[in-house]
Amino acid sequence: MDVATVVGIISGLSFIFIAMALGGGGLSIFLHIPSLMITVGGTLAATLINYPLHEIRGVLGTVRNAFAFEMHTPTAMIESLVSYATKARREGILTLESELETTKDPFLIQGVRLAIDGTAPELIKDILTTELSYVESRHSLGQGIFTMMGTYAPAFGMLGTLIGLISMLRSLTDPSQIGNGMATALITTFYGALMANLIFLPIAGKLKTRTRSEILVKEVIIEGILSIQSGDNPRIVEQKLKAFIAPKLRETVHTRLRT
Amino acid sequence: MDVATVVGIISGLSFIFIAMALGGGGLSIFLHIPSLMITVGGTLAATLINYPLHEIRGVLGTVRNAFAFEMHTPTAMIESLVSYATKARREGILTLESELETTKDPFLIQGVRLAIDGTAPELIKDILTTELSYVESRHSLGQGIFTMMGTYAPAFGMLGTLIGLISMLRSLTDPSQIGNGMATALITTFYGALMANLIFLPIAGKLKTRTRSEILVKEVIIEGILSIQSGDNPRIVEQKLKAFIAPKLRETVHTRLRT
Amino acid sequence: MDVATVVGIISGLSFIFIAMALGGGGLSIFLHIPSLMITVGGTLAATLINYPLHEIRGVLGTVRNAFAFEMHTPTAMIESLVSYATKARREGILTLESELETTKDPFLIQGVRLAIDGTAPELIKDILTTELSYVESRHSLGQGIFTMMGTYAPAFGMLGTLIGLISMLRSLTDPSQIGNGMATALITTFYGALMANLIFLPIAGKLKTRTRSEILVKEVIIEGILSIQSGDNPRIVEQKLKAFIAPKLRETVHTRLRT
Amino acid sequence: MDVATVVGIISGLSFIFIAMALGGGGLSIFLHIPSLMITVGGTLAATLINYPLHEIRGVLGTVRNAFAFEMHTPTAMIESLVSYATKARREGILTLESELETTKDPFLIQGVRLAIDGTAPELIKDILTTELSYVESRHSLGQGIFTMMGTYAPAFGMLGTLIGLISMLRSLTDPSQIGNGMATALITTFYGALMANLIFLPIAGKLKTRTRSEILVKEVIIEGILSIQSGDNPRIVEQKLKAFIAPKLRETVHTRLRT
Amino acid sequence: MDVATVVGIISGLSFIFIAMALGGGGLSIFLHIPSLMITVGGTLAATLINYPLHEIRGVLGTVRNAFAFEMHTPTAMIESLVSYATKARREGILTLESELETTKDPFLIQGVRLAIDGTAPELIKDILTTELSYVESRHSLGQGIFTMMGTYAPAFGMLGTLIGLISMLRSLTDPSQIGNGMATALITTFYGALMANLIFLPIAGKLKTRTRSEILVKEVIIEGILSIQSGDNPRIVEQKLKAFIAPKLRETVHTRLRT
Repeated sequence: MDVATVVGIISGLSFIFIAMALGGGGLSIFLHIPSLMITVGGTLAATLINYPLHEIRGVLGTVRNAFAFEMHTPTAMIESLVSYATKARREGILTLESELETTKDPFLIQGVRLAIDGTAPELIKDILTTELSYVESRHSLGQGIFTMMGTYAPAFGMLGTLIGLISMLRSLTDPSQIGNGMATALITTFYGALMANLIFLPIAGKLKTRTRSEILVKEVIIEGILSIQSGDNPRIVEQKLKAFIAPKLRETVHTRLRT
Repeated sequence: MDVATVVGIISGLSFIFIAMALGGGGLSIFLHIPSLMITVGGTLAATLINYPLHEIRGVLGTVRNAFAFEMHTPTAMIESLVSYATKARREGILTLESELETTKDPFLIQGVRLAIDGTAPELIKDILTTELSYVESRHSLGQGIFTMMGTYAPAFGMLGTLIGLISMLRSLTDPSQIGNGMATALITTFYGALMANLIFLPIAGKLKTRTRSEILVKEVIIEGILSIQSGDNPRIVEQKLKAFIAPKLRETVHTRLRT
Repeated sequence: MDVATVVGIISGLSFIFIAMALGGGGLSIFLHIPSLMITVGGTLAATLINYPLHEIRGVLGTVRNAFAFEMHTPTAMIESLVSYATKARREGILTLESELETTKDPFLIQGVRLAIDGTAPELIKDILTTELSYVESRHSLGQGIFTMMGTYAPAFGMLGTLIGLISMLRSLTDPSQIGNGMATALITTFYGALMANLIFLPIAGKLKTRTRSEILVKEVIIEGILSIQSGDNPRIVEQKLKAFIAPKLRETVHTRLRT
Repeated sequence: MDVATVVGIISGLSFIFIAMALGGGGLSIFLHIPSLMITVGGTLAATLINYPLHEIRGVLGTVRNAFAFEMHTPTAMIESLVSYATKARREGILTLESELETTKDPFLIQGVRLAIDGTAPELIKDILTTELSYVESRHSLGQGIFTMMGTYAPAFGMLGTLIGLISMLRSLTDPSQIGNGMATALITTFYGALMANLIFLPIAGKLKTRTRSEILVKEVIIEGILSIQSGDNPRIVEQKLKAFIAPKLRETVHTRLRT
Repeated sequence: MDVATVVGIISGLSFIFIAMALGGGGLSIFLHIPSLMITVGGTLAATLINYPLHEIRGVLGTVRNAFAFEMHTPTAMIESLVSYATKARREGILTLESELETTKDPFLIQGVRLAIDGTAPELIKDILTTELSYVESRHSLGQGIFTMMGTYAPAFGMLGTLIGLISMLRSLTDPSQIGNGMATALITTFYGALMANLIFLPIAGKLKTRTRSEILVKEVIIEGILSIQSGDNPRIVEQKLKAFIAPKLRETVHTRLRT
């Protein structure tokens, strides 16, 4: 469960709601169903045109990523890989087969299996980096959809405001209604800006940092497996992999080498 | 037929029309032929200056792509290539000639033919990747034109509004006409924003995702043909090609190897 | 003569003029010499500061490119290169000397001459791609100047409007003059937006597509000359070069190989 | 202590406060707690959604970097490395062990130790450049958070203004309150723009230049260690390393070679 | 002396002043010391936070570059290098020592000296391109500061306008003062836009083109020295170097080879 995302959305909405309540007119003046319809509906329609259906559907799974999330920790992965390296050095690389039962990372399993099968290092690197680059491009799609919705929402908010203004200005018989009309017209801009800046763009941002940390773990795996297969000393393996993480984090990596 | 594009445009326009109708003045107040003329005309004129005529003409075919569209499925292509690999291994690469009759993908046909002719692998890779990069650059042209129209449309919308405002302000004899004049002036901004955000930019976006999936299939073909020619085991071919697709999709690939 | 550029500018201006005429105040209210002066003058001044004098002067030649333009056709070039390849194969590469008299492309002549002189392939590639990259950077300069003018024009338009507004607001003795003052103030914004969106940015765009097609022809020439020098079969030369153009265009290439 | 950052913030705020005081209404009219709440609160909430909690916490350390800061001087590092080179040449690379006690740079220590251990040059380069690229990506995160806050602050400022305007327009019974209402509505935009342009964006900028100078020192170290290990003449080491700094700075590098 | 920069600034300011004078209120209404203070002061403060002090100080030298400027002419450099090549071929590379006394370009001197010392070509290329890339990054810093000031100036202009508007709206007792108050508020926006578009951004642009032409000369030098050292025929040296300049300029290169 990603607390930051939940806390961010709830606290952000609270600040907005308090500001709306303090405005004096009460919260109800900010609720306008047709305005909601054009902003949300227009944004969804533009997104439907922009992306194939199956990619939009795939995004639902991505959103879940931004809320509930099993942390990808490079430190734990480094510990595993160094212990693999120790085992492979002492007992031979084939004994890693037994280690695969205790891990759930499909990328790690695939890599270790390739190494056990005696696949040529260049081919292992080729297969894993191809996979890595396509993981990256598939993930960037989810971010792309949210970024795009963060672009369309204010645009349709502005469109709604233009429609409201034109309607109001055309039927300008009662000057006392100008204020009311403009307020209604501005509500779509408000909806669009709110959705973009509190939902779409920040979630796109979180998906991006998620992808980055996932990619980092995968890069550690590739480097580790190639290093293990080439028969590197576990100490060298550890040194190579620690270069991927912050100096402060390095002290938290507890490999069997130190005990 | 790409349902998402059609549903998106129809639903998007519906939301807009409903919002216009609810405005109280009726739909007719949003129809203004001179405003339409300057926004559409100006956008087309700027596009004509921006792009050579034959490229703009080529875009018509590209638009069709965004509506009716034969899906490029990497999974089906992987299945074909793995079956080719099996056949080439058992009966020799020359027997792939007969398989070419059942496929329609010109890129695949060209690649297989090069392999059958015994062309050097580097040359095959050279020819196919050159073609790939030019496919990409030709496709990006179509997206570019739509993105550009999505930039010019709001600009000419704003130009129309400026013309309307200046005309109105200059002839400000009857204050009661201010509202009407401003409404008319704002209509071009509305047209420009609508065209950009519901038509031009989303279609540019869809063309982009289309190109990406088409490129992906072509990359799978190149990798597959080179792997087949080098005499790789069909299992290796399958493994290499599956790295290009999402883990979830991999289970949907049914190659003869598994039966 | 590039019809699209001319038709685009004329039709674009027509749409704008019609919209201005329909505004009711006549075309004359849109003519304001001081406003023209500040928008055009400011844009030119900023461009003068931004670019060295000799580069701005060189742009005049570039603009001509956007209007009158001898089309660079990769298909014709491919036909020539394939016929060169046939001749070089049959009668030796030295006989290409005679072909150089019928061509006018200095890049092609330079390349063929290098090949005839027996220059090492790497050196030929080195010299021609160096030239290619500097052609590209020199061309991008022209586009850069127009793009920059397309950025400065609206900025100086807005500056003019600010000057107009401040002047008007300071001397606000006669309220009936507000409308007139604001109209005059807005005219510079109008001029700036018009120049940017109908002239500067679209012409920058056309120069860009021109450069791209010119670069494409040069890439075809490099590939072709290297292929001819290495003694490739004309059929291979044709296949390599056709990878650079769209499948549809390939059928329009008529080489002697087919007759 | 980075004087520029402190002087910049204090003088910037002074200019703003003086301008506010000169406005005639006194400073107090610019203080509005609900407005502060929505701008600051909204920005923080969006940042919380956008970045994982532990990365936001890590930023506090980064901010300190922008204020108190031990200058990274490539010149001092070049002097050290040249003296190392001299020692390594005369007395053997193993004697560098004693030099490590007087330095505190962990990157330099790691590099020298790798060289002393006789690690293969490619592996040293591999480990150090991997580390360099991850230092860069970790630093860019801190800048990214500040840049993002510089984007969200004006957005939430505008959201607050929209809320204020809608509230005011809805309850437009007393026209004499319009001015007051609009002033309050504009305050959030003011807060957002102030935070973005005087705090978030400039600090993001300073973090960026800091990172760049830190990276430069690390690049000097990598080049220097590889050069020392390969047994280069100290003169060559000096020449190679001086290429990294400005010609003017080169004269300030005093290596023992010159004495 | 770069006439274009001076003429641009003077003519640009003239256009602006004439427009201000024609506004009817005289030039004096555009002078407002507090507005100037907040725009200039705020921009400088933000720049101080954004960049380390010594880098801002270094910019003064860079600005001078945009005004007084010794033209970097690749043609003259090509002539020198071809004459060096001729001399080196006839009398040996060591005789180039005497040529160094007549040149002032430190980059050329360094390169020739490296060649005379018999440094390995890869090392020469390595040292010179390292230097080239750091020249580029140091120069881009100067442009960066001006571009940043061009971003902060309009932002602080807008901040000043917000302060002015809020002050005015809060103390809205005398409606006849609205115009005056708004005029004063707008002056900061005017100052910010003027500084950005007539000073900061165009000068950043000129520094960029300067850097480009300086880099070009340095690339010519590297290519030339490597070519001379490898003992290339002066004709080949000339051909290689001329690829860096425009075809039209090539005819203006008068090397001794032609006489």
